Amino acid sequence: MVSPKPGFLSLASWAVFFLLLWTSGEGGKLLVMPIDGSHWLSMLPIIEKLRDKGHEIVVVAPEINLRIHSSPVYTLKTYPVSYTKEFVEAEFKEMGHRSFTPQPFLKKLSKIANFTSMFLDSCKRLLSDKELIQYLEGRKFDAIFMDPFFPCGQILAEHLSLPSVYFLRGLPCSVEFQATMCPSPPSYVPRFFTRSTDCMSFWQRLGNLLATLGSSLACSVLYSPYDPLIWEFLQREATVPELFSHAAVWLMKYDFVFEYPRPLMPNMVLVGGIGCTREKRLSQVLWRYTGKAPPNLPKNVKLVKWLPQNDLLAHPKTRAFITHGGSHGVYEGICNAVPMVLMPLFGDQMDNAKRVESRGAGLTLNILEMTSTDISNALKAVINDKKYKENIQRLSDLHLDRPIHPLDLAVHWVEFVMRHKGAPHLRPAAHDLNWVQYHSLDVIAFLAAVTLLFLFISFKCCLCCCRRCCCKKGRTGKATKAKSH
Amino acid sequence: MVSPKPGFLSLASWAVFFLLLWTSGEGGKLLVMPIDGSHWLSMLPIIEKLRDKGHEIVVVAPEINLRIHSSPVYTLKTYPVSYTKEFVEAEFKEMGHRSFTPQPFLKKLSKIANFTSMFLDSCKRLLSDKELIQYLEGRKFDAIFMDPFFPCGQILAEHLSLPSVYFLRGLPCSVEFQATMCPSPPSYVPRFFTRSTDCMSFWQRLGNLLATLGSSLACSVLYSPYDPLIWEFLQREATVPELFSHAAVWLMKYDFVFEYPRPLMPNMVLVGGIGCTREKRLSQVLWRYTGKAPPNLPKNVKLVKWLPQNDLLAHPKTRAFITHGGSHGVYEGICNAVPMVLMPLFGDQMDNAKRVESRGAGLTLNILEMTSTDISNALKAVINDKKYKENIQRLSDLHLDRPIHPLDLAVHWVEFVMRHKGAPHLRPAAHDLNWVQYHSLDVIAFLAAVTLLFLFISFKCCLCCCRRCCCKKGRTGKATKAKSH
Repeated sequence: MVSPKPGFLSLASWAVFFLLLWTSGEGGKLLVMPIDGSHWLSMLPIIEKLRDKGHEIVVVAPEINLRIHSSPVYTLKTYPVSYTKEFVEAEFKEMGHRSFTPQPFLKKLSKIANFTSMFLDSCKRLLSDKELIQYLEGRKFDAIFMDPFFPCGQILAEHLSLPSVYFLRGLPCSVEFQATMCPSPPSYVPRFFTRSTDCMSFWQRLGNLLATLGSSLACSVLYSPYDPLIWEFLQREATVPELFSHAAVWLMKYDFVFEYPRPLMPNMVLVGGIGCTREKRLSQVLWRYTGKAPPNLPKNVKLVKWLPQNDLLAHPKTRAFITHGGSHGVYEGICNAVPMVLMPLFGDQMDNAKRVESRGAGLTLNILEMTSTDISNALKAVINDKKYKENIQRLSDLHLDRPIHPLDLAVHWVEFVMRHKGAPHLRPAAHDLNWVQYHSLDVIAFLAAVTLLFLFISFKCCLCCCRRCCCKKGRTGKATKAKSH
Repeated sequence: MVSPKPGFLSLASWAVFFLLLWTSGEGGKLLVMPIDGSHWLSMLPIIEKLRDKGHEIVVVAPEINLRIHSSPVYTLKTYPVSYTKEFVEAEFKEMGHRSFTPQPFLKKLSKIANFTSMFLDSCKRLLSDKELIQYLEGRKFDAIFMDPFFPCGQILAEHLSLPSVYFLRGLPCSVEFQATMCPSPPSYVPRFFTRSTDCMSFWQRLGNLLATLGSSLACSVLYSPYDPLIWEFLQREATVPELFSHAAVWLMKYDFVFEYPRPLMPNMVLVGGIGCTREKRLSQVLWRYTGKAPPNLPKNVKLVKWLPQNDLLAHPKTRAFITHGGSHGVYEGICNAVPMVLMPLFGDQMDNAKRVESRGAGLTLNILEMTSTDISNALKAVINDKKYKENIQRLSDLHLDRPIHPLDLAVHWVEFVMRHKGAPHLRPAAHDLNWVQYHSLDVIAFLAAVTLLFLFISFKCCLCCCRRCCCKKGRTGKATKAKSH
């Protein structure tokens, strides 16, 4: 910021002047670190809107990816990785296949470990790409906009001293609540993968508390491989959750029509339903299918390779939505008020399905056990039983009745962080306390000690008084006895 | 809601139709229960905007009040009270005088009790005004918009089965956080009247924890006189904090430029700076003073009976703002980036002043101890030391950089509650848990019991094994001895 000449323009006028500069298209510079796949697709509209507002955008991605392509909207900078495109495609395909075959827990874990080590390797390659790092250092960005599912972005943000804006549905082991110091009472805030709602029985609450303890452990296991990398690149000791706690603003891809009501922190902004638009209307009903057409295909089923799901859901004749329960799809269902039959496959999808089902807006099927009769029954139920349509309509009305579109809200907060170089006024002082202090355990211990000491002294005093009284009585008694003798 | 004829209009179309009705001016009916004085002045712009949007508004107030007058904007309904206008004016005047004279704590308490009993009496009169209650029952309101400082509004809301929207800066004994189940860790969320910031020493944290315990007690003392009234009028047992917990949306008159960052619940909406407009500009500098003009008045000081404070603060030549630290005035100072000299008198003003001072945007003086030199020094400091202007400018920039004006946000949420007959999707399941369940104490006790039992059994087993081993060795030893003999 240029400091104003005294007497020429007041500070206030300068601020207004700068704000005008921003809105008139004299944009800033934004670094973007996305994640491939659907994560990227939901981030793209924000990037496009930021570009429309005149900001210069640089996207950094691994050279091997499925959906992050060059575009006139942004400058794409890639870095080499150790895996091939075929490997990634095969991994994704296998992930899909795995969902349809029951697998032992340990094998599942080893597959997750595969993905994690892919991210770690990718991060190592990025941080050691000196040419790219030098280029990024030279660009003097205003902020970084990133998907924290790839924790490397924050390491880079620290190196470049950039304030960061996160965009996420949720993180492994719910580290987002730990990093923001956000209270999450396990008594009514269900943990991921527990498949509980916010109304839990005693045993579910027990499970939820154990899951809370377990997730802390999982967090340190999951992110500890980054510790040496952080040390090497930033020359200081820190963990990934510690670095995450420096984020300026967290844009959360949900709202309380979908997620259960819970406490939030000031720097968490809800932007659920960001991709929900009801602009285009379709005239036909279609079916996406990339395999070979089965011979007994009914006449009212059409096969195409790709279709705009949201526009399809917006069609007035759409009666039900069969979905795997990804959060984007669920929001498109809510946006267009279409009852759902959910067949969750992996990740947060089981929990998403539970949320829709617990609101009476859909039915969940187990993909590993269901029969064609189950699908048929579920479809008939959500189509013919009016309560499903009524419930999803109510959710949709609540979701769409908002003072500002989530896309505009997201763009505002990215620009806010760019303009003010962060959002330190939203950072709670809780970050400066250790665990004992945060929970007031030292104060409670002190109070307990004082109380005990007070009780002990009172007790001793009483005892002393009693003894003296007894002694006196004893003596008086003796004296009386002596006299009477 | 009219149920749609099948085949005529889909549910979705009906919803859109109703939304259109609303936006086209076919408004709803809103009941308003305000509090006299500055509380009412900050509520009025919302009411005016709601009226502009076509809603019919009925304001209920005691017949004796200072600022709530008849207006074409709303229908004013009054109820008789036992006190006179002279009494209220005298009470307010005395409250002012009291601030300038040190008073013992007990006398202060008795004065607060006076005010409380005035509210209670007012509530009794309102609820027993059968004609007015019948009128309100007949009007079929969509919602009630109220200042919960007068707890009677919620009793009426329960009787009329209306969803309620609250508008407040804070409530006595911080009951708003208890009623919303909002976590407020005493380690960094300073309690009212402690004058602590969010960075506390051990002793301050101790004081804050004790204040937390004390405020729970104060709450039950303060609101218990309403219990028989609730029983009489609603025919059921409930406390005021219980009734408060039914509020649909809480519009909080602060933001995190002013308040310290802390957890919030989904139904708490921040609308700080609602009265901040920078539309009108003044050409002169003026001084409000209602007493006799002193003989030694300097030529650059003008005396007038009233002036628009916000417009005055917006004048570019305004260098400092001497204020008693009411939250409305503080926000006008922030809005216009004017450094402050604060002389808090009562209520939340000491805490407000602390917040401004801790941000380096002003200086606080003790009205009971200050000298003219103190005022002069403080004024010189905030005017000449650039850091005050820089800090208030930074706060002002952050405060004004928002995606939607707080007035529009407040209007949106009142209308939201009117449209949807509440906001049940924002109500956390925590309300259905008791204190033990909420804090997972039953689960923790169970886990502790199981762990202890496990340890005990393990210990016993070990002991048993050891004994057997010893016995065997003993026997073997004996046997060997016997053989060797």
